[in-house]
Amino acid sequence: MSNPSVEPVAVKWWGWGLESKTYPLDDKPQFWPYLLKTLRLAELRECPRVTYEQVRLPAPRLDGRTLARLKRVAGVANVSTQKRDRLTHSLGKSYLDLLSLRRGIIRSPPDAVVYPEDEGEVAELLDFAQANRISVVPFAGGSSVVGGVEPARRRGFKGAITLDLRAMNHVVDVDPVSLTATVETGISGPELEEALNRKGFTLAHFPQSFQFSALGGWIATRSAGQVSTKYGKIEDMVESLTLVSPSGRLETRAVPASASGPELKQLLIGSEGTLGVITKAKLRIKRLPEVRKYEGLMFKSFRDGINAIRETMQSGLIPAMMRLSDPYETEVSLVLASEPRRLTEKVTRKFGLWMLERLGYASPRACMMILGVEGDAASAKAERQVAVRACKRNGAFAIGSAAGRTWLNERFELPYLRDILLDHCILVDTLETATTWNRLETLHGAVKSSIEDALAGMGASGVAFAHVSHAYPDGASLYFTIIAPQVKGREAQQWLRMKKAATNCIMRNGGTLSHHHGIGKDHAPWIRQELGADGLDVLRAVKRQLDPKGIMNPGKLLESS
Amino acid sequence: MSNPSVEPVAVKWWGWGLESKTYPLDDKPQFWPYLLKTLRLAELRECPRVTYEQVRLPAPRLDGRTLARLKRVAGVANVSTQKRDRLTHSLGKSYLDLLSLRRGIIRSPPDAVVYPEDEGEVAELLDFAQANRISVVPFAGGSSVVGGVEPARRRGFKGAITLDLRAMNHVVDVDPVSLTATVETGISGPELEEALNRKGFTLAHFPQSFQFSALGGWIATRSAGQVSTKYGKIEDMVESLTLVSPSGRLETRAVPASASGPELKQLLIGSEGTLGVITKAKLRIKRLPEVRKYEGLMFKSFRDGINAIRETMQSGLIPAMMRLSDPYETEVSLVLASEPRRLTEKVTRKFGLWMLERLGYASPRACMMILGVEGDAASAKAERQVAVRACKRNGAFAIGSAAGRTWLNERFELPYLRDILLDHCILVDTLETATTWNRLETLHGAVKSSIEDALAGMGASGVAFAHVSHAYPDGASLYFTIIAPQVKGREAQQWLRMKKAATNCIMRNGGTLSHHHGIGKDHAPWIRQELGADGLDVLRAVKRQLDPKGIMNPGKLLESS
Repeated sequence: MSNPSVEPVAVKWWGWGLESKTYPLDDKPQFWPYLLKTLRLAELRECPRVTYEQVRLPAPRLDGRTLARLKRVAGVANVSTQKRDRLTHSLGKSYLDLLSLRRGIIRSPPDAVVYPEDEGEVAELLDFAQANRISVVPFAGGSSVVGGVEPARRRGFKGAITLDLRAMNHVVDVDPVSLTATVETGISGPELEEALNRKGFTLAHFPQSFQFSALGGWIATRSAGQVSTKYGKIEDMVESLTLVSPSGRLETRAVPASASGPELKQLLIGSEGTLGVITKAKLRIKRLPEVRKYEGLMFKSFRDGINAIRETMQSGLIPAMMRLSDPYETEVSLVLASEPRRLTEKVTRKFGLWMLERLGYASPRACMMILGVEGDAASAKAERQVAVRACKRNGAFAIGSAAGRTWLNERFELPYLRDILLDHCILVDTLETATTWNRLETLHGAVKSSIEDALAGMGASGVAFAHVSHAYPDGASLYFTIIAPQVKGREAQQWLRMKKAATNCIMRNGGTLSHHHGIGKDHAPWIRQELGADGLDVLRAVKRQLDPKGIMNPGKLLESS
Repeated sequence: MSNPSVEPVAVKWWGWGLESKTYPLDDKPQFWPYLLKTLRLAELRECPRVTYEQVRLPAPRLDGRTLARLKRVAGVANVSTQKRDRLTHSLGKSYLDLLSLRRGIIRSPPDAVVYPEDEGEVAELLDFAQANRISVVPFAGGSSVVGGVEPARRRGFKGAITLDLRAMNHVVDVDPVSLTATVETGISGPELEEALNRKGFTLAHFPQSFQFSALGGWIATRSAGQVSTKYGKIEDMVESLTLVSPSGRLETRAVPASASGPELKQLLIGSEGTLGVITKAKLRIKRLPEVRKYEGLMFKSFRDGINAIRETMQSGLIPAMMRLSDPYETEVSLVLASEPRRLTEKVTRKFGLWMLERLGYASPRACMMILGVEGDAASAKAERQVAVRACKRNGAFAIGSAAGRTWLNERFELPYLRDILLDHCILVDTLETATTWNRLETLHGAVKSSIEDALAGMGASGVAFAHVSHAYPDGASLYFTIIAPQVKGREAQQWLRMKKAATNCIMRNGGTLSHHHGIGKDHAPWIRQELGADGLDVLRAVKRQLDPKGIMNPGKLLESS
C-alpha cells in the first residue's frame, strides 16, 4: 500500500457509498407524493449538509514524540493524522452518525489512523498502544450502524488510534478440495468475491453493505448476508480464525468440527474489536452456483407468508432466500418499482395489479415475497419445488421472475435513498432482531406499534415496516425500516426515544438485541439484559484476560460509554 | 424419584449396557478364527473379572456432620453412600475404566452420590460444596470414554460428590410451531426419544451410547449422533441452555441466531462439567421422518469412497449419513455379518461376494459405505439422488438395502462385543478425530500406522481400522477401532503408549483432539496444543469467573490431574 490515505474510489464522508452515485427517483413518479401523504406532510423541508471545508475536527491529542514512535512502528507512510483520514474513521454509517457528519459535528475522531500491513505489525501496534495508554479501534469497512467504530474519549487514555486493515486484503490460499480460503480480514466484499470468482468460487456472503464493508467487520459483528438462509451467517462460514490481542495471539484449529472443549472461535466471532484484532480467517467457500433463480410471490396476509417460510425451513430443504415484506413494505416496494417505459408494459403492469386485487391480494393485507434458490442444478430444483409447494399451500400467487430480477439488481441500492431523504429532513433508520416462530407475528406487531407510538409521542407521524429475511427451522429475523419527519432541533432525541421504545419492546417480546448489526455503542445499554448479569461477567472476564488494560475499542459491546 | 439408588434396569457395573444382554457370536462362525489369525494368536486367554463382592472401595471421606448437612440440602433419600452407587459413579466406560472395574481396583469413587430433583437443588448443592471445599462431578449417563466422570482426589478438598441428574428428566415443554423442546438434562436418550416420538417428533441425536447416555452429557461433551451429517452435532441442536455454576446462573437467550456479541452458548457447550452443571436446554426438534432409507454401496478404494462423500457434501444437498469403512473395517464387517440360516440365502450371499470380487470390489482395497437418507419424502428423495449419483460417479456398486437394515438393527450393539473381548484379554478401544478433506487420507494412514507401530513396539500384533462417519462440506471425522492382544501385566501402559502415539500423530497431521468424545482426563495433556497457550488461558479465565474455587470436575479438560 503505497499511499493508503488516498481513497481508492471517491466515497462519501457524509453518507453512503460513492460520491458519484445516487438512488434514481426520476422513474418513480409515485414516490414523493406517496411519502408526503404517508408522513402527512404538506411539503418537504431541506436540510443541507456542511461542506468538507466546514467540518472542524478536535486537534489530535498524540504528542509529537508519541506520534514519531508510532510512525517508527507502522512506517511513516502508514500513519495519517490528515483531516480526511480522521474524518472518515470518526463514525460509522448509522442515522446518528450521519446526523453528526452532515452537521460537521465530530466529537471523537481518532487522533491518528494507522494502516498496518501484516499481522506482525498489528501485534506491534497493540504492544505500543498498550504501553502508551492509547485506545485502539479495529476498522475494516467502517459500515457499522450501531456505533461500532467511533473512538471513545476516555479519561486515562493519551489518545485513540484507528487501525484500518485495508492493506491486509490478501487471499493467502484457496483449497479447492476442502473448499476453504484463507483470507486477511481487511479485504472488502467486492475484492474477496472477485478473487474467489476468478477461481470459480464464492463466499456467498452478501450483506446490504457488501460493496463497502469488509471481512473483518463481518466477523467482528456476526454479519448475515442476503442468502444466509441457505449459506449461514458469517459465523457459520468461518472454519478458523486468528485474533491478535494485547495479551497474545489466538489461532483456532482449522477443522470442520470438534469436541475439544468449548468452541473458542464463537467467543471471538462477534467480539466487535473489544478483545483484539481479527487478522485472518479460513472461510468455507462454495463453487459458483450453476443456477440462480429469484422470483416473486404474493400472499393474502403476512401470516400466510410466515407460515410458508416456516413450513419450508422445517421441511429439510433450504432455499437461498425467502424474503417476505409485511403489508406496508409491500406497498412501499410497489411505489419504489420503476415506472415501465413502454406503453404495453405499463398496461400489462396495471392489469396485473388490478388482477391481483381482484384475486384478494390487495393492500392493506397483501404481502410480497422474493424466493431465491441457487446452487447445483439438482439441489436448486429440489429446493425450489419444496418452497413453491409450501407457498402455494399457503395461498401464494406467483408473480414471476421480473420481481426477482428487480430485487437482485437493486439489492445494494437502498442505502443511497437514505441520503436523499436526509437531505429532506426525513428520519430514516433500520433495526433488526430475530425470534422463534411462535413469537414472530406478535413481535412484529408490537415493535411496529412501539416505534410508531414513540414517534407520534413527539408529534411526528412516522411509519415502521418490516420484512422477514433470514430464516431458520426454529425462527427468523425481522428487519424494520423507520421513516418519519425529523423533529426540528431534537433530531437525536427523537431517534433515541424511538430506539429505546423499539429495543425495550424487542427485549420484552423475546427477540434478540440484534440478529446481524451487532451491539456497538447503541445497543450496549441492553447487553446485560440480553446476556444476563452472569453472562456479561463471563465476557468481561474474557476481556480482562485478553485486554487487561482495556485499550480495545472501549465503550462498545460490554460497557456503555 | 422415590429411591434413586435402585437402578431402574440392571446395568453392568463392569462393562457396557444391560446385565442380561450380550453380543451374539453364535451365528458368526468366522469371527473367532478371523480374530486369532489377525492377532496372530494360537489360542485365546481368559481374563475373568472380580465379582461385585470382591470390589473394595476406599472409605467415604465425608465426616458424619458434613454428610448430615448434605442430606438436609438434598433430602435424605437423595444422598447415597452405598457401595453400588459409589461404584457405578466411580468411572466411565473407557478401556482404562473397564480394566480398573474388572479388577475391582477403584481408586477414586465419589464419597457420596447425590440425586438432585431440580435446578434450585443443584444451585444449593453447589453452594454447599463450595462452602465445604467438596469437589463436584456432574453425571448424566456416565458413558464417557475419555475419563470425564471420575472424581479427582485432590489435596485441598474434603471430599468429592457426584451429582447424578437422572431425576431431572422432564420434558418441560414442546413447541410444535417453532419445533423446539425444553428438557431437563438428566433425561436419557430413550426417555427423550419416547417422549418426543409420542408427539410425532424426534431429536435425531443417536450416538452409539444412545441407550445409556443422557442429554446433559451430550451437551457437556459436544456429542455427535450417527445422523449428525444431516442434523448437526448436539451443539447445533441446542437453541439455548441453562448452566448453574458456583458463581451464579446463566441462561442464554432462546432465539434462532444472534449478533449480540460472542456466542456464550458455545462456551458452555463442551464445558464438560468444569464450569457448572447444565440443567436445562431448549432443543431444536424435527418431525418424525416420513421416509427412512439405508443401503449399502461398495467402492473399489477408500479414496473413491471419500471423494463420493466430499462431492455429496459440497453439492448442497446433505443426506442423513454416509458412513464409509476403510478396507480393513470392511473386511471385519463381513466377518461380523450373521451367517444366513437358509441355504438359498447362503448361496446368494456367497455368489454376491464372488461377483463383487470379480468386479474389482475385493479385499484388501474394497470399502463399504452405508448411505442413509431420512426426512420428508421430497427431501429424502432429492438427497438420495444426489448422493447416489456422486457414489456412482466414483465407481460405487450398490449392494442394496439389506446392508442398511443390518446396520440400523445393530447400530447400538457393538459395545457389547468389547466386554466379550475383554473376557479374552483383548485390548479394544476406539478413538476419533476430524480434519479437512485435503488431509483426511494422509491422516487416516498416519494414525493407523502410528497405532500399529506403537502396539508392535510392545510385542503385540494389533490392528487399527476406521470409518468416515460425520461429514461436512469442508471435511469429515475419522473413527478408529483398535484391537490387540493385551500385554500381560502391562495392560494400562500398553494402552497409554498406543494412545500417546495416536494422539501425537493426530496433532501433527492437522486433526482435532476429539470430534465428539471430548477431552476429559485422557486428552487433557494435549489441550494446550489444541487451543494454543492463549486460548487455554481464556478458558481458564472463564473457569475462574464461574468456578473461582475450582470445585467443578477438577482434573478434566483444562488441566491434567
